[in-house]
Amino acid sequence: MKKFLDENFLLNNKTAEQLYHEFVKQMPVIDYHNHLPPQQIADDHCFENLTQAWLYGDHYKWRAMRTNGVDEGYCTGYKSDYEKFEQWSATVPYTLRNPLYHWTHLELQRYFDVHEILSPSTAFEIYSEGSKKLQSKEYSVRNLLRKMKVEFLCTTDDPTDSLEHHRKIQDDGFEIKVLPTFRPDKAMQVESEESFNAYLKKLENACGFSISNYESFLNALQNRHDYFATMGCIIADHGLAQMYAENYAYQEIENIFLKIRGGKSLQSDEQLKFKSAVLADMVKMNYATGWVQRFHLGAKRNNNTRMMLELGPDTGWDSIGDSISGATLSKFLDMLDADNMLAEPILYNLNPADNELMAPMAGNFNYGSVVGQDHGGSDWWLFVQEDRMVKQVYALSTLGL
Amino acid sequence: MKKFLDENFLLNNKTAEQLYHEFVKQMPVIDYHNHLPPQQIADDHCFENLTQAWLYGDHYKWRAMRTNGVDEGYCTGYKSDYEKFEQWSATVPYTLRNPLYHWTHLELQRYFDVHEILSPSTAFEIYSEGSKKLQSKEYSVRNLLRKMKVEFLCTTDDPTDSLEHHRKIQDDGFEIKVLPTFRPDKAMQVESEESFNAYLKKLENACGFSISNYESFLNALQNRHDYFATMGCIIADHGLAQMYAENYAYQEIENIFLKIRGGKSLQSDEQLKFKSAVLADMVKMNYATGWVQRFHLGAKRNNNTRMMLELGPDTGWDSIGDSISGATLSKFLDMLDADNMLAEPILYNLNPADNELMAPMAGNFNYGSVVGQDHGGSDWWLFVQEDRMVKQVYALSTLGL
Amino acid sequence: MKKFLDENFLLNNKTAEQLYHEFVKQMPVIDYHNHLPPQQIADDHCFENLTQAWLYGDHYKWRAMRTNGVDEGYCTGYKSDYEKFEQWSATVPYTLRNPLYHWTHLELQRYFDVHEILSPSTAFEIYSEGSKKLQSKEYSVRNLLRKMKVEFLCTTDDPTDSLEHHRKIQDDGFEIKVLPTFRPDKAMQVESEESFNAYLKKLENACGFSISNYESFLNALQNRHDYFATMGCIIADHGLAQMYAENYAYQEIENIFLKIRGGKSLQSDEQLKFKSAVLADMVKMNYATGWVQRFHLGAKRNNNTRMMLELGPDTGWDSIGDSISGATLSKFLDMLDADNMLAEPILYNLNPADNELMAPMAGNFNYGSVVGQDHGGSDWWLFVQEDRMVKQVYALSTLGL
Repeated sequence: MKKFLDENFLLNNKTAEQLYHEFVKQMPVIDYHNHLPPQQIADDHCFENLTQAWLYGDHYKWRAMRTNGVDEGYCTGYKSDYEKFEQWSATVPYTLRNPLYHWTHLELQRYFDVHEILSPSTAFEIYSEGSKKLQSKEYSVRNLLRKMKVEFLCTTDDPTDSLEHHRKIQDDGFEIKVLPTFRPDKAMQVESEESFNAYLKKLENACGFSISNYESFLNALQNRHDYFATMGCIIADHGLAQMYAENYAYQEIENIFLKIRGGKSLQSDEQLKFKSAVLADMVKMNYATGWVQRFHLGAKRNNNTRMMLELGPDTGWDSIGDSISGATLSKFLDMLDADNMLAEPILYNLNPADNELMAPMAGNFNYGSVVGQDHGGSDWWLFVQEDRMVKQVYALSTLGL
Repeated sequence: MKKFLDENFLLNNKTAEQLYHEFVKQMPVIDYHNHLPPQQIADDHCFENLTQAWLYGDHYKWRAMRTNGVDEGYCTGYKSDYEKFEQWSATVPYTLRNPLYHWTHLELQRYFDVHEILSPSTAFEIYSEGSKKLQSKEYSVRNLLRKMKVEFLCTTDDPTDSLEHHRKIQDDGFEIKVLPTFRPDKAMQVESEESFNAYLKKLENACGFSISNYESFLNALQNRHDYFATMGCIIADHGLAQMYAENYAYQEIENIFLKIRGGKSLQSDEQLKFKSAVLADMVKMNYATGWVQRFHLGAKRNNNTRMMLELGPDTGWDSIGDSISGATLSKFLDMLDADNMLAEPILYNLNPADNELMAPMAGNFNYGSVVGQDHGGSDWWLFVQEDRMVKQVYALSTLGL
Repeated sequence: MKKFLDENFLLNNKTAEQLYHEFVKQMPVIDYHNHLPPQQIADDHCFENLTQAWLYGDHYKWRAMRTNGVDEGYCTGYKSDYEKFEQWSATVPYTLRNPLYHWTHLELQRYFDVHEILSPSTAFEIYSEGSKKLQSKEYSVRNLLRKMKVEFLCTTDDPTDSLEHHRKIQDDGFEIKVLPTFRPDKAMQVESEESFNAYLKKLENACGFSISNYESFLNALQNRHDYFATMGCIIADHGLAQMYAENYAYQEIENIFLKIRGGKSLQSDEQLKFKSAVLADMVKMNYATGWVQRFHLGAKRNNNTRMMLELGPDTGWDSIGDSISGATLSKFLDMLDADNMLAEPILYNLNPADNELMAPMAGNFNYGSVVGQDHGGSDWWLFVQEDRMVKQVYALSTLGL
């Protein structure tokens, strides 16, 4: 019988084993999208224990714990690190088939040399052994990255970020390339006039001039785009519930900007037009600098208003959204293409029902200038399951090259 | 070669066989959703023949027969019971791969000890043998339930139902627990003012007071809800084409109610608001009594107007609807959660394209108070196929616990 | 090890091999939908080389070449036939898993007796050998059809077509039955008043009388419908982005027709009503002649405006559209059924997310008058992949007969 999650995990025949062990395993990790905190890399942080490394901020795990009946105190609350770990270890056996189960045990095996299954009966031993290792220099953040053979990574950063930690990492001469990614989602979030104006304040501070109209707003974003470029950024990331491609006139956008800048809330058609304008202007900046641009489409975030008010965003209340509109996506790409302003796009969808809709989409704008421009990104987030990755590759390869 | 549909049907390896034969097979049936007629259980009815047991009222089978070119006379019409059975037996061979094929033969094998395949050449013999058995006391409705090891079952009942048959079953001390389910779909069907007012009349008769405004309408539903609770009901069932979560003011709903009560037809936006209000008020009742509530979403019923007028609803003209709106479903759950009025929901979808949209939805409202609240019900109705059940379990288990 | 794409390609067990080799292989091809040019059959055309047979007009292959970084000059442009073939041969290895790969090699093996893999290193030899064969009478268009055991085929033709080539084929007494298919898509394309009026001019020329109002427009279509019927046509083909089933009054349609006839552009609601009217009137013609009617639903065509202006339609810029509206499709079929005007429909969908929505749809309108009327056509176009064909058959067989 095959050993539990052994070194041939997911390798179902001899060819797969050979390809993995002789070629893939030696290859470096080029991770062009993650949410690692740059400060921990800059500081070469050492975690005190497994809970700090695994459970601080990991809302995937919180969500699983809540589903297993674990009180919020053990997720985001005041409980001790070990009490939190105990609850996580009691949840793990129920995550069978969920990637959390595979990640947990692969990490334990491959980086901590722990080959037991995490459960309440092994929790104490694994916590002690893992935490002891994490406290040693061998397991500092930079050494963990080296242990994982990472060669290149891109973090995810807001335009207002000073990138001071990236600067420190570069100044240190850290041999792993750590680049920022420009992610201006908040520049389009005009659902709340308070949040948007608060964000404009941060943006003013970052660029050093005041923002009084749509033009200066764009100048501020361009200023930060330029700054990110000087810091080595080569990718823009756009997280969008859907694609936005409304028709609009420049004067309309100016008026909408002035309205929300003046503290008034926007109608939903005004929001759509404004988002369409900002997005179009952002992707033109991406084109001008030759950046790759990624579109993460179709998340339905912050479904739980009560917990959003209590814990804020990204705390485990997001979901898969309805099918995205292929018609709007096509219109968006076509408008940019008509102006010859379409930078290389990578399209990610979240709802697997859209796999086949998405697979040939980018191919509608291929001219032979770039090899293999049929870029559908791998499914993301709730979709890092083997079956869904296989299906997404299948859709891409049978409908494209 | 494996025997036809033998005792290891669907069991593809030794572990599966062991799990089934040593554990599952002995377990009782807890059937918390069916459409059994309570009167047949109350009367301990004996069927005269296989046609009465299988073909009276089974619109799945009628639909297959029609597709096979069988005239309506043999489905819902005047033909003799045996003539109907003959046509069904001629249709069965063409249902290969359809669950009707499996159900037919599993029922014959496991309850009638008939191991032949139903076809025109075996029809007479199977009809004779099956009918003789059905006429004996050993095959009365209660004995059939005992033979199937049923321990607990919930029927599906309209709020206006007197539940007299449930009362008789309980008074008889029948050892199998038979409970009603509260299914108030007709209280929301305001497409036709005639049908709705006819339903209000039945509701008035059931609760014993007149219904003149929205408040008395709600009182009538509450009255029946209370009555169902005294009869042991613990589940509310809501069959909805889609989820309804329009914003509305109380006065608006009052006016809409008075309009349709006065015999005027409602605009489609009025219908949506009214349905949203009734649904919200019903689920608050469910919360107050601590019932489980089930939402059957996404059927497109009565597609064939001509046959709807001739035969009425539930006669085999229903279909799978378009994808449900995840945004509306999220809004609905969130509104109830914000008021802390969300009873334990079970969500059923009909279109498998929505499997992944639905799987994490309930998890957006888990707080650790209930273990395993990630309740997506198994696909239903047209979806009781092995492949679709496997996929639905896959979606739930890879996206949840 | 199994030979590359050998005679048992796609046959995974002994039963499949036996069924194919003893039965299927000998059967004639009845191809009731293709886009073969009737003129080439009428002329019994001989191709000069493989490029002319494979790459002239095949926008599937152009699209793959563009994705592989090939310049437009080698697709639709001025490059020589052999230069184009070279670029195609360099693209083929990257089409692995795409049906283009299978088609290419199956055609080489089964009709040209070439058993090598097409790539730059084999390109010259394969081109030379294939072209020499194509130039011989043995590989004329009619002899290719005979070689493929074609017994019956239907081309795809515009109502304005004179069908002169079909007439010649029939007059020649060609033993393979070649019939036209009536495809009136352009009679519904009212997005551009110029194109529509230009089309009306062609239609006037074809029918020989002037078209001044909606009635004479319908008369013209009826005239061509009648003519196609005299030429043996038995199928109407409708390529629709979605189904159209708006409510309308006759006078409205008359006014909309006069508006566009007068050179004014139509609002989108006017377009929808007009399309709904023309479609309803066309399907009534289909019913009256007893034709089968096919609906190809859900393509999103001409996504790339720049290339549409440069190369025109059907040059490789089409895509899979959003899910079609099941509600509208149901309404459309129901309206026709209510008037008893529903000719036998075959429904094709393009987005596999709609498979289960579509499978039971036609079954809502079965009355037992026609055997097996559960007609969902096989997925089409971008969907001729093994996996998708299997899934579509699965959806049909588990939800129908």
